[in-house]
Amino acid sequence: MSSPTRDKMIAGAADLLSRRGVHATSLRTVVQHTGTPRGSLGHHFPGGKQQLLEEAVRHANESVAVPLETLMKERGAVEGLQAFVGWWRRILESSGFEAGCPVLAVAVEPMADEEDAASGEQLRELAHEAFERWEAILAAALRREGVAASRAQRLGALTVAAIEGTVAMCRAARSTRALDDVQLELKAMLM
Amino acid sequence: MSSPTRDKMIAGAADLLSRRGVHATSLRTVVQHTGTPRGSLGHHFPGGKQQLLEEAVRHANESVAVPLETLMKERGAVEGLQAFVGWWRRILESSGFEAGCPVLAVAVEPMADEEDAASGEQLRELAHEAFERWEAILAAALRREGVAASRAQRLGALTVAAIEGTVAMCRAARSTRALDDVQLELKAMLM
Repeated sequence: MSSPTRDKMIAGAADLLSRRGVHATSLRTVVQHTGTPRGSLGHHFPGGKQQLLEEAVRHANESVAVPLETLMKERGAVEGLQAFVGWWRRILESSGFEAGCPVLAVAVEPMADEEDAASGEQLRELAHEAFERWEAILAAALRREGVAASRAQRLGALTVAAIEGTVAMCRAARSTRALDDVQLELKAMLM
Repeated sequence: MSSPTRDKMIAGAADLLSRRGVHATSLRTVVQHTGTPRGSLGHHFPGGKQQLLEEAVRHANESVAVPLETLMKERGAVEGLQAFVGWWRRILESSGFEAGCPVLAVAVEPMADEEDAASGEQLRELAHEAFERWEAILAAALRREGVAASRAQRLGALTVAAIEGTVAMCRAARSTRALDDVQLELKAMLM
């Protein structure tokens, strides 16, 4: 059931995942990060850390997919992508290059050995669903502009991959230089 | 000082980083993963986990840069990149989609709060050096083939970013489909 506290915890878990990874995103650190009452954790997340992380990845999926789809529909593939890259640039800059993508975090850091292997599989599957959905939104926008379906799918994959890789590279560099470079080349490729 | 045991521990730490991330790559798990004698850890890595991870990121930098540079010089940018992507495909498939890139792991999962913040900064800087070096190798290959310096730099950044993002997406999907898509589009872009 949705509640302001629960929503704040889920968004906070997604933000913390994007900054510090899967291991560091615990029930305790999410409560600290969001300033929410510790006592409500068991009520909102009876499945514990696993449930909170699953909700955080679903939330991250939505919070990219919804604006991405709107931008693609309202501005078209080329201008929409420019705005989408600008959104990522603001996330990097406003967080001092600490925040990134929660879905990438889950894709590269499986749940630790001592935890349930099935839990890790579920998170991996949710990360895969998010990547595929974002690719499909880009591919659909390109098809609407006359790009053949197979090429639109490939360009969707390349665009998602390039942005994910670049955001990680910018965090390592503490600079948006790579994002500026990639933005220009993606634009040239889609035009 | 180099020794077969030390080298095995460093390569094992890089492999473990690529599979499980920074937190899960400890002195204990590296000894288990590599079957090396626990007693020699203090001798080879007096700086503990921090030193082992730094050496692992330097090793990962080299183990991409050296074959990438050779491929670019011997086969040129387009064919060299095809072979490089094939190398990543084999890493994914031979590990059952468990292994990925140790440098990306370090870029997205900083050392945990309770550890030294300066240690995390050092690892981040080493990850940045690796990405920049790989970009520069690709850019130099493109310049040798007549691409203007500024565009060669941008294409180098896009290529590194796209491969990093795609490898993570393939791990999440347990499939090389995204790598196949991205390989075709990168080839078209560089030709």
